[in-house]
Amino acid sequence: MIMSIFSHPDFDGHEAVHAFCDTESGLRAFIAVHNTNRGPASGGTRFWTYASDGDALADVLRLSRAMSYKNAMAQLDIGGGKAVILRPEGAFDRNALFAAYGRSVETIGGTYITAEDVGVSPADMAVIKTQTDNVAGLSEGDNASGDPSPVTAEGVFRGIRVAAERAYGSPDLNGRRVAIQGLGSVGYALAEHLAHVGADLQVADIDTSRLARAEKELGATIVDTNDILSADVDILAPCALGGAINSDSLPAIRASIVAGAANNQLRTPDMAEALTARGILYAPDYVINAGGIINVAAEVAGRYDVAWVQTKLDQLEETLGEVFDRAASEGRTTASIANEMAQERMAVIRDWR
Amino acid sequence: MIMSIFSHPDFDGHEAVHAFCDTESGLRAFIAVHNTNRGPASGGTRFWTYASDGDALADVLRLSRAMSYKNAMAQLDIGGGKAVILRPEGAFDRNALFAAYGRSVETIGGTYITAEDVGVSPADMAVIKTQTDNVAGLSEGDNASGDPSPVTAEGVFRGIRVAAERAYGSPDLNGRRVAIQGLGSVGYALAEHLAHVGADLQVADIDTSRLARAEKELGATIVDTNDILSADVDILAPCALGGAINSDSLPAIRASIVAGAANNQLRTPDMAEALTARGILYAPDYVINAGGIINVAAEVAGRYDVAWVQTKLDQLEETLGEVFDRAASEGRTTASIANEMAQERMAVIRDWR
Repeated sequence: MIMSIFSHPDFDGHEAVHAFCDTESGLRAFIAVHNTNRGPASGGTRFWTYASDGDALADVLRLSRAMSYKNAMAQLDIGGGKAVILRPEGAFDRNALFAAYGRSVETIGGTYITAEDVGVSPADMAVIKTQTDNVAGLSEGDNASGDPSPVTAEGVFRGIRVAAERAYGSPDLNGRRVAIQGLGSVGYALAEHLAHVGADLQVADIDTSRLARAEKELGATIVDTNDILSADVDILAPCALGGAINSDSLPAIRASIVAGAANNQLRTPDMAEALTARGILYAPDYVINAGGIINVAAEVAGRYDVAWVQTKLDQLEETLGEVFDRAASEGRTTASIANEMAQERMAVIRDWR
Repeated sequence: MIMSIFSHPDFDGHEAVHAFCDTESGLRAFIAVHNTNRGPASGGTRFWTYASDGDALADVLRLSRAMSYKNAMAQLDIGGGKAVILRPEGAFDRNALFAAYGRSVETIGGTYITAEDVGVSPADMAVIKTQTDNVAGLSEGDNASGDPSPVTAEGVFRGIRVAAERAYGSPDLNGRRVAIQGLGSVGYALAEHLAHVGADLQVADIDTSRLARAEKELGATIVDTNDILSADVDILAPCALGGAINSDSLPAIRASIVAGAANNQLRTPDMAEALTARGILYAPDYVINAGGIINVAAEVAGRYDVAWVQTKLDQLEETLGEVFDRAASEGRTTASIANEMAQERMAVIRDWR
């Protein structure tokens, strides 16, 4: 049976799913608009080699839904969307492909505003921009918000402090032992924040040059990637791929807080209960890693303003505090409370069109 | 495996396939834009109960492709597209549903212009029109082209005359025996044209009132629906459902011309060779039934003009003559020649955006 869109297991009432094909450039792309109650759907475009276009569709359905939750939770005036471009097999003209993609974004007239995601470069974004104004997160231009990674890292750092206050009675991270899985642009920037306030870092990555730098500049201890999740620390910060918290890794976790930058840290939803049962405080990933999209949203609003971004990061802290409060008072998991709050915030319909 | 869009067996490089969902009204719709080289994709919206959304997707992919062929063959400045709305199970607010659909059409900004198709009423079209100007084939308004059925019937009638000239040396249909399968609005109007020029009609339909009217007003002979395809006639005009010409019906056909208004008359492509082998001249369905979309195209162009429509019907005759010429000189089927000519005409890229 052909499952199509509406009966797809990952279909969640998405307002629109657009498939674009341009035979000349080889473009094949999906743009999924999950929810636009709060504003135009915003989320990055991913350029990726998929085993099948069914995999690409599943990816864009899941990712766009996650953006609705993240954007609503951060109380941004944008909705949730995402796009994936299937990397062509064989040779292709990259500029022609991204130009065709830009025309596709333009076709759906402002219901979706794109930004960078995995596999898409600032140069690709500039090509997209030649075809449509529905682009944000640019590195250059009047209102460019630039690299969102530092803002994501700051939001995660703030989230860790809020979690520490709940777990230890103080947000002070001086002397706290923190394990960071993944020293990408966000993970490294997070490490810098933590080192700056005196945290004791253990770090793992597959990139040895990054490890060496963290050891030298931040005094971090290098840990094998196989051992980082079970490191003897207070706080575990997954900042690499999704699914770090799973039935294999969970029993070995020694931290009392899990709070990191990675998306989809819980491989399965039941990990939320499992963390709670072990007395580990979990800061829901999409709540504390929203700094990047906050930065992009500032550009979408046409008013890139550092003070506004800081205000939204203050709100991020308040929101996380509310998640912790409600989870404690209702005896539920933080993940479940966060989802409920995001749905409440997503239900607010703003007249933006 | 989830086949998605691009790997769907009916996917033919469609430029865009849009899935729209509106949970409030219950709207679930696909809009397929097959090809816009010649102009905005135009084709009707169908409102239908599908067994699955996979069936709906297959339908919209096939129908939109067929519109590209039909529109290009008629040398219209429009591309090929089609839409299907899945009829909701249970109760629904029809106006809310068609309004949501109208907003969906508006979202894709003029790349698709809709018209009526099966299950959609003039009232539904008026509701769609409240949300978008990308509508044609309206029954009322400044530039309304009204009911396209009479124009479709006239085109088929002209096509039959061209075929008769090839088969019998004269377009004169006086005394020619013609079997019409289906007396819907197009079939009945065709019967009127034929009766007017003295053809001897045999007709079949499941609607007895229409049969009685044709008998009384046009002197037609009523034939059982099971016997109409094998009637002892010169010309067979399928004007009902698709697939009339199939391996069951073919051996019993006694006509020397097949030329009617139905879409997709050949159930399988090999029927084209089978008709040729039996010495039956086939006027390709989408070539001669283009009158309706010609009429709609006049409205799209913003210049509804009876004389222009007549000019396009003259062209339809010329095109059919060219199909017959090339088929005869190249020893190929008329269906194969028509597809090739349509592809040639579709490859002409017009700067319309």
